[in-house]
Amino acid sequence: MSENEQQMIQRLLAPLASGLDGAFGLRDDAALLSPPEGSEFVVTMDTLIDARHFLFDGSPHSAAMAARKALAVNVSDLAAKGADPFAYLLSIALPPEHETWLDGFVKGLEAAQTEWGLHLAGGDTVGTGGVLSITITAIGLVAKGRMVQRSTARAGDVLMVSGTIGDAFAGLSVDQGNQKLVNEWRRQVGDEGLAHLLARSRTPTPRLKLSHALRRHATAALDISDGLALDASRLAAASGCAAEIEGSAVPVSEPVRLLLQTGQLSLADIVTGGDDYEVLAAVAPEDAAAFSKMALDDVQSVTRIGLLTAGSGLTVRNAGGKTVYLQKWGWDHFS
Amino acid sequence: MSENEQQMIQRLLAPLASGLDGAFGLRDDAALLSPPEGSEFVVTMDTLIDARHFLFDGSPHSAAMAARKALAVNVSDLAAKGADPFAYLLSIALPPEHETWLDGFVKGLEAAQTEWGLHLAGGDTVGTGGVLSITITAIGLVAKGRMVQRSTARAGDVLMVSGTIGDAFAGLSVDQGNQKLVNEWRRQVGDEGLAHLLARSRTPTPRLKLSHALRRHATAALDISDGLALDASRLAAASGCAAEIEGSAVPVSEPVRLLLQTGQLSLADIVTGGDDYEVLAAVAPEDAAAFSKMALDDVQSVTRIGLLTAGSGLTVRNAGGKTVYLQKWGWDHFS
Repeated sequence: MSENEQQMIQRLLAPLASGLDGAFGLRDDAALLSPPEGSEFVVTMDTLIDARHFLFDGSPHSAAMAARKALAVNVSDLAAKGADPFAYLLSIALPPEHETWLDGFVKGLEAAQTEWGLHLAGGDTVGTGGVLSITITAIGLVAKGRMVQRSTARAGDVLMVSGTIGDAFAGLSVDQGNQKLVNEWRRQVGDEGLAHLLARSRTPTPRLKLSHALRRHATAALDISDGLALDASRLAAASGCAAEIEGSAVPVSEPVRLLLQTGQLSLADIVTGGDDYEVLAAVAPEDAAAFSKMALDDVQSVTRIGLLTAGSGLTVRNAGGKTVYLQKWGWDHFS
Repeated sequence: MSENEQQMIQRLLAPLASGLDGAFGLRDDAALLSPPEGSEFVVTMDTLIDARHFLFDGSPHSAAMAARKALAVNVSDLAAKGADPFAYLLSIALPPEHETWLDGFVKGLEAAQTEWGLHLAGGDTVGTGGVLSITITAIGLVAKGRMVQRSTARAGDVLMVSGTIGDAFAGLSVDQGNQKLVNEWRRQVGDEGLAHLLARSRTPTPRLKLSHALRRHATAALDISDGLALDASRLAAASGCAAEIEGSAVPVSEPVRLLLQTGQLSLADIVTGGDDYEVLAAVAPEDAAAFSKMALDDVQSVTRIGLLTAGSGLTVRNAGGKTVYLQKWGWDHFS
């Protein structure tokens, strides 16, 4: 007889809830959660669907990567808000034959939640005739009144971005590209370069190390999921400002630098590609140096890429100071 | 040009978040939530998928019903835990052509959240080539230490159930039945009877009126989603007891009574059919009368249907006192 839902939950998922009293070992219908005195909950929810947000081939390994990415994109939201991960709820729509890879999925989840310091609090599992889809509600903790919002930046603030931009877009291009493209890119960036790009696309890492510096110095922040340009425009619009980005200042990894140099990638590609899961922060100009230093002390590089000005809209300039025409600013979930 | 995601969210969904400060008008990446002094959050998450959990035909009306049901099944969990609804997060996977019915979906959601007293706090919208799927994380409030759990019943407690059982299963049978069955059932229960059964299946109402009495008198409770028998067995197992249910005591509506009488439905059908969204509570025998009275004062009928005993397992007896053989106890999400 095949395992029923309750048995599967107890065998595979309940261990992910141990360490969180209010999860009741996943043996109740709801979790009981309360922020410690002086703290508030920061709550976010994202859904990832096979072939749209991750590539799932039915193997345990690809299931583990899907699980990690689903948790990563949610924890990335918490990181950008200056919140510390606390708990998450998980709903999985499971296609048939999940017996073959569900263990891999759970192993991926377990490694990720251990790395980022949160526990499973509850959720749902449903069968589907369709594709694998994963919804996570992530809950973080922040000291009262200290959540880093999106709408609180001011004209004159500088824009700072963590890590490097464009790796995930390049990685996705490799994953979706034909053999000719893969061979050409491998020739240009080497096996290690390709592996770096693929890892950035398939297994993103939320910038939790930055939370500390964000809480201290950022006037506003968000994580870059739909493209640097689009997300910068959102931060600016929410704060009643315009955003100006210097394309030559946008930090890139060595493989992306090589691909830009040979024209395999364009500046427009990398500022609109999305899936970066870096943090974009606005910082008062007099705090920029302190922000960079505090971030670096926490082993997280940040780079100044532009500023917010009075007005509205978004401008991206190239190295020559010319405005770059962007056909789109990023990735719209409906387009 | 068609509306983009951000515009759609602001036009349709942001109004559902007004009244909840921490939702930031859905203009941030996360919500900021904190239970009032002396309270805790009760958190639950359920996913509903077209054709499995609701019937969606692309019309605004069926979209409104799907929205109501998705919120109802989550709020039903809160009700059974003795929690008062506070906020919810919503993730929708939208198939193409959603422009034609999304307004209906939001109207259904708005009516339901107003009726049950909670606000939208955040979430996600993604496009899908597959079917409509809705995931909700619902957050309720309960006084510290007062959540009604599943595992805290004791042998000797009586089992009490709210409302009537089997209506939703009968309604689903009509929705999925051929014209011959529909005609026969209409002859037996009349148009109004059919309408009642369909409404119980399509647009369930969480038993929030019972929360008050549950907090006061229940030793344990859960809502009946997967079948009275299966959910009773879960409550009993979590509490280390056996459950005994008297079939003749299970409360049924007039149309279900008629269908049982003519053999169109069996006792096994109604105790395993599921989707009832009634509350099953364990109550100490000396508190049963007070529980019933307090529930009735809040305009919610409850009926004693059995008891918990030392041991394990589940027994359902018919009117003659014979054990009813159940091929399955309820609805397993994986079967």
